[in-house]
Amino acid sequence: MKAVILNKTKDIAIVDDFLMEEHLSPYDVRIAVKHVGICGSDVHYYEEGKIGSYIVTEPMVLGHEASGIVVEVGEQVTRLIVGDRVCMEPGIPDFTSKASRLGMYNLDPNVRFWATPPIHGCLRDSVVNPASLTFKVPDSMSLEEAAMVEPMAIGMYAATKAGIQPGDIALVLGAGTIGITTTLAALAGGCSKVIISDVQQPKLDLIRSIAPVKIVNITKNDLAGVIVHETDEWGVDIVFEASGNKEAFSTMFNYVCPGGKVVIIGIPSEPSPFDVPAAQAKEAVTIPIFRYAHMFPKTLALLDSGKIDLKPCISRRFSFDKAVEAFELAAKHQPDIVKIQIYL
Amino acid sequence: MKAVILNKTKDIAIVDDFLMEEHLSPYDVRIAVKHVGICGSDVHYYEEGKIGSYIVTEPMVLGHEASGIVVEVGEQVTRLIVGDRVCMEPGIPDFTSKASRLGMYNLDPNVRFWATPPIHGCLRDSVVNPASLTFKVPDSMSLEEAAMVEPMAIGMYAATKAGIQPGDIALVLGAGTIGITTTLAALAGGCSKVIISDVQQPKLDLIRSIAPVKIVNITKNDLAGVIVHETDEWGVDIVFEASGNKEAFSTMFNYVCPGGKVVIIGIPSEPSPFDVPAAQAKEAVTIPIFRYAHMFPKTLALLDSGKIDLKPCISRRFSFDKAVEAFELAAKHQPDIVKIQIYL
Amino acid sequence: MKAVILNKTKDIAIVDDFLMEEHLSPYDVRIAVKHVGICGSDVHYYEEGKIGSYIVTEPMVLGHEASGIVVEVGEQVTRLIVGDRVCMEPGIPDFTSKASRLGMYNLDPNVRFWATPPIHGCLRDSVVNPASLTFKVPDSMSLEEAAMVEPMAIGMYAATKAGIQPGDIALVLGAGTIGITTTLAALAGGCSKVIISDVQQPKLDLIRSIAPVKIVNITKNDLAGVIVHETDEWGVDIVFEASGNKEAFSTMFNYVCPGGKVVIIGIPSEPSPFDVPAAQAKEAVTIPIFRYAHMFPKTLALLDSGKIDLKPCISRRFSFDKAVEAFELAAKHQPDIVKIQIYL
Amino acid sequence: MKAVILNKTKDIAIVDDFLMEEHLSPYDVRIAVKHVGICGSDVHYYEEGKIGSYIVTEPMVLGHEASGIVVEVGEQVTRLIVGDRVCMEPGIPDFTSKASRLGMYNLDPNVRFWATPPIHGCLRDSVVNPASLTFKVPDSMSLEEAAMVEPMAIGMYAATKAGIQPGDIALVLGAGTIGITTTLAALAGGCSKVIISDVQQPKLDLIRSIAPVKIVNITKNDLAGVIVHETDEWGVDIVFEASGNKEAFSTMFNYVCPGGKVVIIGIPSEPSPFDVPAAQAKEAVTIPIFRYAHMFPKTLALLDSGKIDLKPCISRRFSFDKAVEAFELAAKHQPDIVKIQIYL
Repeated sequence: MKAVILNKTKDIAIVDDFLMEEHLSPYDVRIAVKHVGICGSDVHYYEEGKIGSYIVTEPMVLGHEASGIVVEVGEQVTRLIVGDRVCMEPGIPDFTSKASRLGMYNLDPNVRFWATPPIHGCLRDSVVNPASLTFKVPDSMSLEEAAMVEPMAIGMYAATKAGIQPGDIALVLGAGTIGITTTLAALAGGCSKVIISDVQQPKLDLIRSIAPVKIVNITKNDLAGVIVHETDEWGVDIVFEASGNKEAFSTMFNYVCPGGKVVIIGIPSEPSPFDVPAAQAKEAVTIPIFRYAHMFPKTLALLDSGKIDLKPCISRRFSFDKAVEAFELAAKHQPDIVKIQIYL
Repeated sequence: MKAVILNKTKDIAIVDDFLMEEHLSPYDVRIAVKHVGICGSDVHYYEEGKIGSYIVTEPMVLGHEASGIVVEVGEQVTRLIVGDRVCMEPGIPDFTSKASRLGMYNLDPNVRFWATPPIHGCLRDSVVNPASLTFKVPDSMSLEEAAMVEPMAIGMYAATKAGIQPGDIALVLGAGTIGITTTLAALAGGCSKVIISDVQQPKLDLIRSIAPVKIVNITKNDLAGVIVHETDEWGVDIVFEASGNKEAFSTMFNYVCPGGKVVIIGIPSEPSPFDVPAAQAKEAVTIPIFRYAHMFPKTLALLDSGKIDLKPCISRRFSFDKAVEAFELAAKHQPDIVKIQIYL
Repeated sequence: MKAVILNKTKDIAIVDDFLMEEHLSPYDVRIAVKHVGICGSDVHYYEEGKIGSYIVTEPMVLGHEASGIVVEVGEQVTRLIVGDRVCMEPGIPDFTSKASRLGMYNLDPNVRFWATPPIHGCLRDSVVNPASLTFKVPDSMSLEEAAMVEPMAIGMYAATKAGIQPGDIALVLGAGTIGITTTLAALAGGCSKVIISDVQQPKLDLIRSIAPVKIVNITKNDLAGVIVHETDEWGVDIVFEASGNKEAFSTMFNYVCPGGKVVIIGIPSEPSPFDVPAAQAKEAVTIPIFRYAHMFPKTLALLDSGKIDLKPCISRRFSFDKAVEAFELAAKHQPDIVKIQIYL
Repeated sequence: MKAVILNKTKDIAIVDDFLMEEHLSPYDVRIAVKHVGICGSDVHYYEEGKIGSYIVTEPMVLGHEASGIVVEVGEQVTRLIVGDRVCMEPGIPDFTSKASRLGMYNLDPNVRFWATPPIHGCLRDSVVNPASLTFKVPDSMSLEEAAMVEPMAIGMYAATKAGIQPGDIALVLGAGTIGITTTLAALAGGCSKVIISDVQQPKLDLIRSIAPVKIVNITKNDLAGVIVHETDEWGVDIVFEASGNKEAFSTMFNYVCPGGKVVIIGIPSEPSPFDVPAAQAKEAVTIPIFRYAHMFPKTLALLDSGKIDLKPCISRRFSFDKAVEAFELAAKHQPDIVKIQIYL
C-alpha cells in the first residue's frame, strides 16, 4: 500500500509498495484513510529521529491524526457499517490491563500508539482499528474537520481534567496548537473568560482571530498585573500550562486563585523548578495529563453543536503525493500556521 | 419608606410609610433598590400565605430578586463605593456557623432570607446588606439584567453541582423559569446539547426561542425514545429535575447514562417514589440542591461574557406604583411569561 | 464434574457428571474450587426460582463466592502460576464495552455473573476465569477467609463510594450480612464510629460481638434521638442503607448531616418514597451501588493487614456432599448465622 | 499575666507581668491554658527569629498547640460552658472573606495565627478564642493529649486531602513529627499499609514502636525496590511528602501508581525540581496543603475512638517555670523525641 515513511532523521519518503498486512479481528474495522494532520510529534521524529526514549530505529509510517471511511467490519461489530465516515483514536491499549480496567486506558504501559516507535502510523491507504475506538462523524462535519478531533481531544482532556465550573476564568500559558485547542475547549467547556500568553505576537494574533480571548505578550506586558486586573485580585480558577517552558513552571502558581488548579499539558525537556510554598499558600492542585482518554465522543458532540469550530485551524492542505513538501513546511514552524493536513 | 407589603393571603398593598430602620454595620452597605423581579415564591405567598412550614403571620415586604445602587458604605468596606451598581444575595447566613465554615452557607439553618417569613423582602426604597454578599455589576449589563442574577444563580448552581464535563448531554425536566435558567447555565457551562421536556407547548416554544434546545412535549412524544435517539442509546450524562412533578421522580433514572447524575431542583409537595433498582443498575447519583451558594460572581462573569443573555427572559416591566397589577398578572401563570419585574 | 445444581424452585441436587467444558483462552486460568459461600441470592433462587427479571428456566449451578487453587494457566498469563491460592471476581464483563472502558465494568449490561441465569455458578470442581479477575491470596489468609472476599467486596465498595473522610461517623441501616461487611469496611476505611440499626436484636448482638459498633434496635429505641446525641446534633456524615426496607428510604435523610451522603446498597422490591425536601435542605447526595468494581485487591490488602477479620463471620461449614443440607439451613434465615460455606 | 516570650533570636524569657488585655466578644470564650506543645515553628523562631517572610521584630509570646479549661463565655455562646475542657484552633480568619466563605478559611490571607508575627501565641495564663474554633475534649482524653490535637490536625488534613480509599497503600517521605502524625492519620483513615522513609534510623525505629509501619532507611535501602515489592509493581496510591527535602521532590513521582496522588506537607526552602514527564506518565495529581481546616472535630473523634493513640508521642513534659529549658532541649533536635509539652 501507499505510505509516508520516515526512514531516519530528515529522511522521509512516499512509497507505493509498503508491505503491511493487518488482520481484522471480529471486533475491528478497516478504514480507508482520507485526511491526516501533521502533529508536532511527527515533525519532531522527522527532525530528530526520536522523542525522549522513543527512538526511530526502523523505517516507520508517520501520522496519527486521521479520519476515513469504513471499508470492512469484523463480524462482532454492531455499531459501524461499511461506508461510515469515521475518526479514530490512535492509541490501542490492552483493555484487560489494570490501568484500562480502572478507566485510564491512556496510562496502560502497553498501549500501542500510532507513529510512536516501533508502531506504524496511519499515513497510508488503510488502517485496522478496534471498533470501540472508532467513532462515527456527524453529518454536519467534514472529514477534514474529523481529522482535527485527535489534537482537539488533548485540549478537551485538559478542560475535562480541570473540572471547570460554569463561569470560571482560565489562563493558558503558550499559544501553540495545543494552547489553541485547550482554549477552545475551555471556552466551550464553561469558562467565562480565557487569557492566553505567549512570547510570539503572531501566534497571539492568530488565536485572537479564532476565539474571543484576552491575549498577553509577556515580552511586553506584565502577566501578573493583567491577572490581578481581570480577576479582581483573586487569581484565575485554572492555569493550563501548554508551553513546556521552564520559566512558566516556576511562576505558574502566582496566577492561580486559592483552591485553584494547574493543568500541565506541556512536556518540559528537563527537571522543572516548582514554587512549592506558593502552591501551598493557595493549596493549588497540579493535574498533569498524558494524551487523553474517553474524549472522542464528547469532542464530536461539541463540534456537531457548533460550539467549537476547528475549520479556521486547518491552515494548509496537501495531497498525498505532496506529503514531503507538507513535512518540509511543517518543519519551518511558522507562527501563522496551526495545522497542516494531507489528504488521500 | 415605600414598600410592597403582603398583609395576608391575596391582600397586597403599596405603602409609603413603612417603618423599618436598618442599622449599617461596618461591613454592610446600604443600597437604593432599582429593579425587583417577582419570583414564584412571592406569588405563592401572595396566593396561599405560606410555603410549607413558612407561614406569613405578620405583614411582610415581598421580593428578593434585586439590583440597585450603593448609597452608603460601612467603614470597613473596601471593595464597594457609593454609586456602584450592584446586585445582592438575599440570604444572609451566620458566617461562623458550622455549615458556613464548611462553605455551605446556604445550608445554615439560621440563614435570614428576604421575603421568607418573618424576614422582610426588598420591594422597598432601600436595603442594608453585607458587602460580602453584594456584587458590582459589569458595565456591559443593565440593572434590569442584574435583577435576573438571583434566579439565574439557581440554574448556575444546578449546573455547577452537576459537575458538567465539556460535551455532556443534559435533559431538563420542566420548562418553567428555573428550567430555563438551568438550560442556559447548562449550555454556557459546557453541555453540547440540552433536551427539555414539559407538558405545556407554549413554554417549550418560548424556551426554543431563547436557546438552541431540543424540546419534547411529553403529552405527544415518547421522551425515552428521544433520549435513546439523541444519545446513541447511552442515556444523558445529566438529568436536571426542575418540574417537582411526582411522575418525573419515578421515571428520571430511565433517561440517565451509567455513572450519570440527577440534579434535583424541583421541590415536590409530597413523598416521591424513586425507582431505586433503576438508579442502582446505572449507579446514577442524585444531587439535591437548596437555593445556591457562591454563584453571583460566576453568573455575572458569564453574563458579562455574552455567553448567557437574559434579556429575552424579562417579559414585562411595571413601575413601583403598579406593583399590585404586576402581582395580579404573575398570579395568572401565563405560559408565555418568564419574568415580571418592578422598577423603582 | 461434580456440581450443585438448582433444577427448579426448591429442587437442588448434587450431581457427579455435570457436563461443562470450559475453553481456556490465553488470558484465562483454570481454578480448582475449594470454598464457596452461600449468598442470599443463591438462597433466593433456591426459594423462589428468580430474582426480579432473572428467572431460572434451565438447571443452573449455584454459587459465586469462591476461593481455590490455580491448576492451569493460559499462555499469556504472567502474574499467576499453577499452585497459586486465589479468589475470583464472579462477574466477567466485555472489557471493550463503553461502561468497561470508563472503569465501570460492573455496569456493563453484558456482564456474565456466576449463578445469575443463564450463567452457571462455581459450586463445582473447577472454573475458568480471566487472570485479570483472579487474585492471589496472601499467605496470612486461609482459603476459607478468601471465599469471604466476594461478600466483603460489597461492603468495601459501599465504603469506597461513600468517600469516607478520616473520622467520619456513619449509620448503617440493616444488620444483615451486607450491613456487617459494610460496617467492617467503614471502620477499617476511616470512620471513627459506626451506629447500626435493625429490628432483630440477635443480629445486632451478633455484630456487636464482631465489631465495636453502637447498636440501635429501632423497635425499642428512637434512632433520631440516638443520632442527635452521637453526632452533637449535626447528623452522621454517611448513611449506608443496607436494609432494602421501604420505611428506611422515607426517613434516611433525617439522620444525615448537611452536605452528607447516603449510599444505597439494599435493593427494595417496590418504588420507594423519598423525602426530597429533607434531602434538599441538607443537599445530601444519594449514591446507589451495583455489586462492585476494583475491590478485590484492596479487600485482600485490608484482610492481610489485620484491620478486618472475617473469621467470626463464617458461622457454619459443610462438606460438598452435605451441600443440600447447607442450603436447607440457609433457607431458615437464622439471625445468629452470618455466612455458611461449602468446601470441596 | 504569665507568658513565655521570645524577645529576639535565642532570647526567650518567662515573664510574670505580660500586659495583654483581650476583649471577649459575644461569640468568644476565655480559656485558662493548661498544656502547650512546642512546635518546630516555635523552635525555628527561637533559633532564627523568622520563618520566611514572617520576622519577629517585637517581643512575641510563643506557642500555638494548646488545651485548657473554659473560664468565661460570651453571651451568644451556646455550645460551651465554664469548666469545659477544650482544645483550640490557633488560626482565626475573617469568616466573611472570600476564602472563608468558600470553606477554605485556612487560606484567608488575613488569618491571625498564634505565634506567627505579629500575633502573640498561647504560652500564657489565658487566651480568648472564638467559640466556633474551640472544641470540647471527650472524657476519654487527657488535656495532655488534647494539646496534641493541633499537630495531629496537620496529619489528618493531609490524609483527608489525599482522599484515601479503603485499603490504599501510602508512602510517607520523612519521619519527623508531621511524618508521624500523617502516618497515624493515614492508618486510621483507611490505609492498609504505610511505608515510611527517612535518613535517620532512630526516627524510623521510634515510629515503628508507635505504629505498624514498614520503615525504609534510604541511606541503606533502595526505596524504589521496596515500593515495587510492597505494591506488586503498581506503585503506592498516595505519597505524603513530609520531608521538605529537595531530593524527595525530584523522585517522588517514581513511587506513585497511575492515577495516584502526591500530598505535599513539607515546605522546601528553595525552588524544587519536579520530574514533570514522570508525573504526566502516571497522571499523578499533586496536592499541596497549608496548615488545615475543619480537622479538630474529626481528630477528636478518632482519638476518642481509640483508633489513634498519641500518648506515646508526648516524649517530655516541663512545668511552666522550666519553659526555657524545654526550648533548649527542643533546639537540640534529638531524633528520639517527638513532642515536648509545657504545662501550666
